[in-house]
Amino acid sequence: MNLNIALLAGDGIGPEVVDQAVKVVNAVAHKFNHTVNWTSALTGAAAIDAVGEPYPDETHEVCMAADAVLFGAIGHPRFDHDPKATVRPEQGLLKMRKKLGLYANVRPTFTFPSLIENSPLKRERIEGTDLIILRELTGGIYFGERGRKDEGNTAFDTCTYTREEIQRLAKLGFEMAMGRRKKLCCVDKANVLESSRLWRETVQDMEKDFPAVEVSYEFVDAVAMRLVQWPSSYDVIITENLFGDILTDEASVISGSMGLMPSSSIGIHTSLFEPIHGSYPQAAGKDIANPLATVLSAAMMFEDGFGLKEEAELIRTVVNKSLAEGIVTEDLAGKGNKAYKTSEVGDWLAANI
Amino acid sequence: MNLNIALLAGDGIGPEVVDQAVKVVNAVAHKFNHTVNWTSALTGAAAIDAVGEPYPDETHEVCMAADAVLFGAIGHPRFDHDPKATVRPEQGLLKMRKKLGLYANVRPTFTFPSLIENSPLKRERIEGTDLIILRELTGGIYFGERGRKDEGNTAFDTCTYTREEIQRLAKLGFEMAMGRRKKLCCVDKANVLESSRLWRETVQDMEKDFPAVEVSYEFVDAVAMRLVQWPSSYDVIITENLFGDILTDEASVISGSMGLMPSSSIGIHTSLFEPIHGSYPQAAGKDIANPLATVLSAAMMFEDGFGLKEEAELIRTVVNKSLAEGIVTEDLAGKGNKAYKTSEVGDWLAANI
Ligand SMILES: CC(C)[C@H](C(=O)O)[C@@H](O)C(=O)O
Ligand SMILES: CC(C)[C@H](C(=O)O)[C@@H](O)C(=O)O
Repeated sequence: MNLNIALLAGDGIGPEVVDQAVKVVNAVAHKFNHTVNWTSALTGAAAIDAVGEPYPDETHEVCMAADAVLFGAIGHPRFDHDPKATVRPEQGLLKMRKKLGLYANVRPTFTFPSLIENSPLKRERIEGTDLIILRELTGGIYFGERGRKDEGNTAFDTCTYTREEIQRLAKLGFEMAMGRRKKLCCVDKANVLESSRLWRETVQDMEKDFPAVEVSYEFVDAVAMRLVQWPSSYDVIITENLFGDILTDEASVISGSMGLMPSSSIGIHTSLFEPIHGSYPQAAGKDIANPLATVLSAAMMFEDGFGLKEEAELIRTVVNKSLAEGIVTEDLAGKGNKAYKTSEVGDWLAANI
Repeated sequence: MNLNIALLAGDGIGPEVVDQAVKVVNAVAHKFNHTVNWTSALTGAAAIDAVGEPYPDETHEVCMAADAVLFGAIGHPRFDHDPKATVRPEQGLLKMRKKLGLYANVRPTFTFPSLIENSPLKRERIEGTDLIILRELTGGIYFGERGRKDEGNTAFDTCTYTREEIQRLAKLGFEMAMGRRKKLCCVDKANVLESSRLWRETVQDMEKDFPAVEVSYEFVDAVAMRLVQWPSSYDVIITENLFGDILTDEASVISGSMGLMPSSSIGIHTSLFEPIHGSYPQAAGKDIANPLATVLSAAMMFEDGFGLKEEAELIRTVVNKSLAEGIVTEDLAGKGNKAYKTSEVGDWLAANI
């Protein structure tokens, strides 16, 4: 198979972790006789520095031409504390999501038995957790009308959803639930928000098309609690953009394996695969960042982007082996054990494919 | 002193837990020579059933005439799964907040040493946690314009904030921080929302008036993570209404003492004190609900509502004593220990004042 992959390394540790995923993907491609065509493009602060724009048109062209996008991370602290900055790396992210039509962010949260002690939660709370949060990614308050009035003294943002947007996301959620434990939880704030009432209404109307799926409806504040109390009680969660932003991040830390969590964003034009962690600027260039989340995102790319399940499984097996044998970066090494460099972990994984 | 207290018991376990607080308040008043005038009024589902309205005008009159409001809980499951219900208990809550001008919800999260094992978090994560979330309560997307378009197929909600609303809440936050560990964290989503940028701008402008306070700015998604990872790193958090809804609930479960957490809502016309737990309909009428959160809310009422610190401290001391001696309801009793009834706990507390 011919695999055309757009490579968007981004900022901070992005380039380093993406490099390791490239090694692994190339090794897998070699083994299974696929041809990979990588095309790199600029994004984030790196793109602002180079061309004054966090998601340049050329980058968009590259993504549109690709079968999948492998993404590192973006964001740089020099933009973080200036509310008046006019060009920001995050704008690139939002523009990219919109222009590529990446309407569904898929965020699994699961545990690795060998890492369960890293969880801030007690073992009996976190054990058995295996959930997916499906976050709507191109609508809601992220993309609604916003602005100032009264000489800048009043600010507003608008959250808008259409029935079609909700159906598109919910359909994916029902289908995923069908392939898993058949439980779907729709998360909203229907006791206050009109957009949430439309979510609930729309999902309720779809229930009859998926009679095997057990659907529940919960308020976002209640879910913020239950994710900490009994995360293993969830299977598939669907929710709107802003709630998804908060809940996916909350869910990511409870696993204790944050540095290992992959994600995908399913799009109209193409799909994008990226680690859930950020650009971690403090570690940039030090060859110490954990590349496993990006490598596991590449596994998701094989399975969900290219429909190549065996290739994906091989990557996961090798990652598990690296964990079992302690070929890990300092964040996972544990006191007294040898910590490997980012690049060493990548080399080891590629060699073991 | 003459203490005029409006008593809004509400739904579910509301009446039972409020009853115990009344016993305790009366005992304290007796001891310190205060005269308490209680005026009960309807709210929530109970008010809908009686007069078709969750926050009737008569109830509002009672609250306006009082020095403080002691509140139980509202909400009833029969309203929960009908997105088209036109009258809902929660509307009463929102109307009450708006009409009483309850602009700041104060939600402490702390741990009781004897209950720390109840936390879903590991001991080393939760120990030392003592934070306050100050949630803006009468603005934002809760009270903005909302509705439908396109024959009901598009729904929208608007989040609006004015500089004055933000200043009012932030001022309280700065002042609270001054009386504590002098750390203030402003939580927003300034990388996306215009209203959040106004929050950040406004708080930044106020920093110079409180030079002793160390201010940080964090995105809501990051805080949703850090509250689970290192809750003890926070002192005072200020945030807008919806983020506050989510984060206060998340914070409440990490302590392991959810059934004990009090809250207050500071208002223009009067202030309101209530347990953070809900109406817990499954337990209603069974005399098993834990009354301590309501009793501790009454302590907050003495201290913050009436400026009577000694009275508040006495209540807290007696509550600690009940915990130490195991005079607790079944949720706290622990396997093999005697569980006391709601009313027995109230009687014991009153007798020990
Ligand atoms: C950087 C920011 C705009 C972004 C978001 O809020 O969507 C990030 O938090 C994420 O979740 O990918
Ligand atoms: C019942 C609901 C409207 C309310 C809110 O969202 O404010 C509740 O969750 C709360 O936090 O008091």
